[in-house]
Amino acid sequence: MTPIITAFEASPDRGKGQARDMRVRWALEEVGQPYEVRLLSFKAMKEPAHRALHPFGQIPTYEEGELALFESGAIVLHIAQHHAGLLPTEAVARSRAINWIFAALSTVEPPIIEREAAWFTERDKPWYAEHGPMLDERVRRRLGELSARLGEHDWLDGAFSAGDLTMVMVLRRLSSTGLLGAYPNLLAYVARGEARPAFQRAFAAQLAVFTAASGT
Amino acid sequence: MTPIITAFEASPDRGKGQARDMRVRWALEEVGQPYEVRLLSFKAMKEPAHRALHPFGQIPTYEEGELALFESGAIVLHIAQHHAGLLPTEAVARSRAINWIFAALSTVEPPIIEREAAWFTERDKPWYAEHGPMLDERVRRRLGELSARLGEHDWLDGAFSAGDLTMVMVLRRLSSTGLLGAYPNLLAYVARGEARPAFQRAFAAQLAVFTAASGT
Repeated sequence: MTPIITAFEASPDRGKGQARDMRVRWALEEVGQPYEVRLLSFKAMKEPAHRALHPFGQIPTYEEGELALFESGAIVLHIAQHHAGLLPTEAVARSRAINWIFAALSTVEPPIIEREAAWFTERDKPWYAEHGPMLDERVRRRLGELSARLGEHDWLDGAFSAGDLTMVMVLRRLSSTGLLGAYPNLLAYVARGEARPAFQRAFAAQLAVFTAASGT
Repeated sequence: MTPIITAFEASPDRGKGQARDMRVRWALEEVGQPYEVRLLSFKAMKEPAHRALHPFGQIPTYEEGELALFESGAIVLHIAQHHAGLLPTEAVARSRAINWIFAALSTVEPPIIEREAAWFTERDKPWYAEHGPMLDERVRRRLGELSARLGEHDWLDGAFSAGDLTMVMVLRRLSSTGLLGAYPNLLAYVARGEARPAFQRAFAAQLAVFTAASGT
């Protein structure tokens, strides 16, 4: 059964792989699972047909027979639990790898999203000059802690896992900000993730959607 | 093997059950698993011994033999996957329930935390009168979408699950704010969670820690 995911018809990041379908594409490529993509306009994402799949009107979703999921973290975990290659088979190591998926999404990503959202909604406000650096500092605190834990290791806990995939994608949201520059090991970690053939295939696939949509 | 969790020695919420150990206590109570608690001061949480367990210097952690976890979402999922009572056994329903854990933590909770953080760090700033309502609106958007999905159902997707447990705990963060008031079905949903005997036992246990610490 070929899973079907949803993605932006015209990604707001212009094909930089920041939209959350990229996480799912990468996971599917890591495990060698072909997939189909249904593209959605911003308007269609908010309509009842899509809301029935995704109550919060976002992408990606994941449909596989009678299963439908709508959180990228849950989709990556589902793929990792049902195919070999993204989680250790031994129980303790497996739970620890899953722990890193949650760390990426619950602890590291929220201040990054908050900082991004402020840039969109507050950068013309008089207070942004003072508020922006407060938000940067919240991101830096998490990066410093993550950098200290990663140290000189290639991946967060042994072999590459769904936890690393998720964390690399979260850190990539900072690619255009310069905030990662103070943490050379995190920069190298992100580069290591991006160098994986499965990442490259997923990146090319989402870029192709943007290129086709923009007629370039 | 009795698991050991960590919790605040003196919870900043004064025993209202908002600290994240409450999620883990509740899950353990639902499945009938006894546990031990190691209490930590704010100072001890940031020291190397605890950082070895929790790279971000927070609570809770979960130790069970050689397994150590540090994200409340991962801990709740681990408990749910290794005991009966918090996840459906059928595969599709199980993945859908796990999806709601991620929805609670990745989609609903972040704007709630952001709003809370702003109250702590910005409420004395001149811009808070304009910024606060923007943050309220982000929370309301998610609550509206969640309320629409829940409708008149008791729980988000069939029987009570670890997804509901996590969502109820996330929504409880708004208990003192009045924001839930516009969504009677969400208020009833939270009350339904709080009425569960396992919630009550977990709540009493964390309150007892605060009461003992404060000498009241």
